Amino acid sequence: MTSPLNVVVIGGVAAGPKTAARLKRIMPEARVTLIDKDRIVSYGACGLPYYVEGLFDDINTLMETPVGVARTPVFFDKVKGFSVRTRTEALAIDRKNRQVRVRNLDSGEEADLPYDKLVIATGGYPFRPPIPGVDLKNVWFMTHPDDARTLVEEIQAQGLKKAVMVGAGFIGIEMAEALKHRGLDVTVVEMVDQIMPGILDKDVATFAAKHLRAKGVKLVLGERVTAIEGDTRAAAVKTDRQKIDADLVVIAVGTRPNDRLARAADLDCMARGGIIINEYCQTSDPNIYAGGDCVVNRYAGKIAGSRLFVALGSTANKHGRIIANHIAGKATPFSGITCTGIVRAFDFTLGRTGLSEQQARNLNMEIETVTWSGPDMPHYMPGSGPFIIKMIASKRDRKLLGVQVAGMGNGAKRIDVSAAVILLGGTLDDVSDVDFGYAPPYSPPIDPLATCAHVLTNKLDGLARGISAFEAKAIIDRGDALLLDVRTPQEFATVQLPYDVVHIPLGALREKSAELPRDRDILAFCKVSMRGYEAQLILNAAGFDRVRFIEGGIIGWPFEVRNLS
Amino acid sequence: MTSPLNVVVIGGVAAGPKTAARLKRIMPEARVTLIDKDRIVSYGACGLPYYVEGLFDDINTLMETPVGVARTPVFFDKVKGFSVRTRTEALAIDRKNRQVRVRNLDSGEEADLPYDKLVIATGGYPFRPPIPGVDLKNVWFMTHPDDARTLVEEIQAQGLKKAVMVGAGFIGIEMAEALKHRGLDVTVVEMVDQIMPGILDKDVATFAAKHLRAKGVKLVLGERVTAIEGDTRAAAVKTDRQKIDADLVVIAVGTRPNDRLARAADLDCMARGGIIINEYCQTSDPNIYAGGDCVVNRYAGKIAGSRLFVALGSTANKHGRIIANHIAGKATPFSGITCTGIVRAFDFTLGRTGLSEQQARNLNMEIETVTWSGPDMPHYMPGSGPFIIKMIASKRDRKLLGVQVAGMGNGAKRIDVSAAVILLGGTLDDVSDVDFGYAPPYSPPIDPLATCAHVLTNKLDGLARGISAFEAKAIIDRGDALLLDVRTPQEFATVQLPYDVVHIPLGALREKSAELPRDRDILAFCKVSMRGYEAQLILNAAGFDRVRFIEGGIIGWPFEVRNLS
Repeated sequence: MTSPLNVVVIGGVAAGPKTAARLKRIMPEARVTLIDKDRIVSYGACGLPYYVEGLFDDINTLMETPVGVARTPVFFDKVKGFSVRTRTEALAIDRKNRQVRVRNLDSGEEADLPYDKLVIATGGYPFRPPIPGVDLKNVWFMTHPDDARTLVEEIQAQGLKKAVMVGAGFIGIEMAEALKHRGLDVTVVEMVDQIMPGILDKDVATFAAKHLRAKGVKLVLGERVTAIEGDTRAAAVKTDRQKIDADLVVIAVGTRPNDRLARAADLDCMARGGIIINEYCQTSDPNIYAGGDCVVNRYAGKIAGSRLFVALGSTANKHGRIIANHIAGKATPFSGITCTGIVRAFDFTLGRTGLSEQQARNLNMEIETVTWSGPDMPHYMPGSGPFIIKMIASKRDRKLLGVQVAGMGNGAKRIDVSAAVILLGGTLDDVSDVDFGYAPPYSPPIDPLATCAHVLTNKLDGLARGISAFEAKAIIDRGDALLLDVRTPQEFATVQLPYDVVHIPLGALREKSAELPRDRDILAFCKVSMRGYEAQLILNAAGFDRVRFIEGGIIGWPFEVRNLS
Repeated sequence: MTSPLNVVVIGGVAAGPKTAARLKRIMPEARVTLIDKDRIVSYGACGLPYYVEGLFDDINTLMETPVGVARTPVFFDKVKGFSVRTRTEALAIDRKNRQVRVRNLDSGEEADLPYDKLVIATGGYPFRPPIPGVDLKNVWFMTHPDDARTLVEEIQAQGLKKAVMVGAGFIGIEMAEALKHRGLDVTVVEMVDQIMPGILDKDVATFAAKHLRAKGVKLVLGERVTAIEGDTRAAAVKTDRQKIDADLVVIAVGTRPNDRLARAADLDCMARGGIIINEYCQTSDPNIYAGGDCVVNRYAGKIAGSRLFVALGSTANKHGRIIANHIAGKATPFSGITCTGIVRAFDFTLGRTGLSEQQARNLNMEIETVTWSGPDMPHYMPGSGPFIIKMIASKRDRKLLGVQVAGMGNGAKRIDVSAAVILLGGTLDDVSDVDFGYAPPYSPPIDPLATCAHVLTNKLDGLARGISAFEAKAIIDRGDALLLDVRTPQEFATVQLPYDVVHIPLGALREKSAELPRDRDILAFCKVSMRGYEAQLILNAAGFDRVRFIEGGIIGWPFEVRNLS
């Protein structure tokens, strides 16, 4: 009888426990040992902002199964059948002898753990900006249940009032909302001149920022934090342009892959960080796997071969399953990621999948984009929420490349559908043909995602001459165009773009088009710019060539509007 | 100069106006005339139940654009640029001379409308069961705004209290909820022994029915309505087994394609009804197009070539776009439908896309199915709702064939993603690889749809030996199996299956497995049957061969449970 396969897993948050649990299910005879230097394992780190917000009272909920059983070493042993050693640090991997040097952090004892297969799931760590003051009290990095627990404790104990988030990515936005709900004064400082940099394009981010500001979050964009000032506790955040009072600072400027062990063991890593793996999550040593936030992923969109670092619990769980399968002899190659990200920001859902316009342009791809705005349900249904969809497609083959959403409407659904279409290499025609579930509580008869694909197709066909709000504003600011508002008088009396406009309701445009100049650029718009598009077509048919419409209309306008009522 | 293309559209609800409006946008020089025998056109028929429910007060909202402009002939002329003639009935199509004989229903005048291209969008009509009493007062067919308006008026005027829906399809369910919200006593009678026949499989329907009953809707299943009794007004509904008091009856036993004109013009139609069209929505006469509820659709799931009649506003709008494109010289073939349907039923979303298990078995396909149950968000998030997903895949190539959802969780999102995957011919592995948007307000780290695909893959791999609740109940009722409940003592004290069970919490199963008999079938389960599956694997590893788990566990159990707390 051969001895059972001996598998060691380093790291106990997401990819590690998933690998171990799945492996024990499909290969019960394997001997699986998971080590982690922490005293707790398998916690829901993504839930930290919601604990801070106060959506649940006991931080231990994050370390429990859905039915309230604590995920302790005893639980993993009894229920999942693998051994967990906490407070156990992996010091080095000895690939030649297939063993891991470990140290018990309580006793200080060291030992060698032999392995047949090794799984590195060491996760990521929050980037610590090299500025003075990051080690002051009341400065938090929001990665561990202890961070959230102590943050809430200190808010209550010290009566903290003024919070500054450094970084406007996922965690910065989630924490801004959480602390705002707790009644704190919240400022978000971001080095780039938009929120969600690298995730959302600037136009979508600008639209989203309007909502955050409306909810009372102060946004300080395009300023670099140079120091956190204070005696023993944080008292202010200094940027290159101002000083912001703060008695609480959360730094969330990105996660870095923790590839130290792998690098020291001479496994292939990216120069900028991240263990390189194949589609089975094997490292350059076939007996060593890696998954979760310590690796770099491949892009699955069937267009760009680049490797990407994206830290996500969902991907970590996929890795875990693939690693376990491969160890057990089942080859289930991973297609890769499509860079999906989503975050709730007060009443808005902000999300993206596939490539952003910026990324696609950086890759020199020939693309076309469009922004649609509108409600997510028929207008007669209460609770329908407006949102914008930005869609990016390849000019050559009309493949869907990327989608971004922002607004109150159900953007999450459209992101997931888009992620499926992008994964499977679908085109705009495919998006249009999806048999979306239609009933008034769920969507209009033509799903917004299909409508958006239609408009983008119309643009590619040269029929719809839409321009983005950003382009429009640049033209308006140069004074180069006539703005044509084609809404009804009732709409016009309620809210307007803050410029001189010519107002001709669409129904009167055919008759009144002679009043418009033929020697100027005309930018037509309406509430969502469906009528703006129709105005362009009506004027084209009347011999006007220089007409475009402003995509997204007033609903999707990311800048200030003039409210009259 | 050639004369402009002359296009006549018959039918003004969904496909007709969509065709006309799109055509005028892409071919402004075309002369487009739309006729309809009704006095109103372009109304949101799908919104009728929500008007009845009281979600909005003015029925005219259904005839308005989202910004409150009435969709009248003047509107279509001024804004959309095509001519609408209401109260105008198409009597016959003269294909040889390319003209339509029409009659003005007010003046009685007849005329011939010449066409270069003709579009038939005559819609469907509600099936009128051939039973006594369907013409009594207080019997409604819910297809026109007048139906909803008069229904609400009569409820108020007559103080109607007891409503019977005949038919438990989409409209029957929507109307049951609407009338229940209005405070009426509601009974739904359905000839088939389940709700949503032909839409949901019986197990999913049975699970959903439990919720309707919990909401106070009486379901009378498997009984055929033989008459509606009453003097001038409906007083009772008679079935083959009982008489049900009713002062209000809504008949919703299906829609039939209105293909009369096409059939009379000798255009190819299905024997059972429905105009046959190609992928550009052309009929057997290339100058005549047809779309909307009067046609039969092709199935797009890349597996079954059959033609299907499915009446849906979403599909009608797709047809309209495709017809307009083709008339204007743009060939945009329609992939077809994937039989998606969705309905809100109180707190539940019921939906389906692709093939049902029943359909697939009728097609003699080799399939495997699974039912998953669980929450749609991480357990620590408030507002997370449980639901079930039933998934059907091909055994041969693991292609996703169909998905059904029922429950409080966000099933609509998972239906739309599934519809995209099925349209694009994706497999279970593709579902698993979709880069779902993950954040705690939207989903668990592994999306339920991916988890469901995993369990189904595990079944196909022979690893997970799940059986449906229906199979389990049949085995239990025969007294053939030992039921093994592996939940915690706390869970066990709250709710139980109403049978003799052996209760061993999963964590104790490895130690206590010797207490179990090896010569009996064991059916393991837990709350959602993840632990039930783990119990199966633990017992398999301990040498027990006759172990299966009950898919969906207690959450997904479609029959009665025993509540202890």
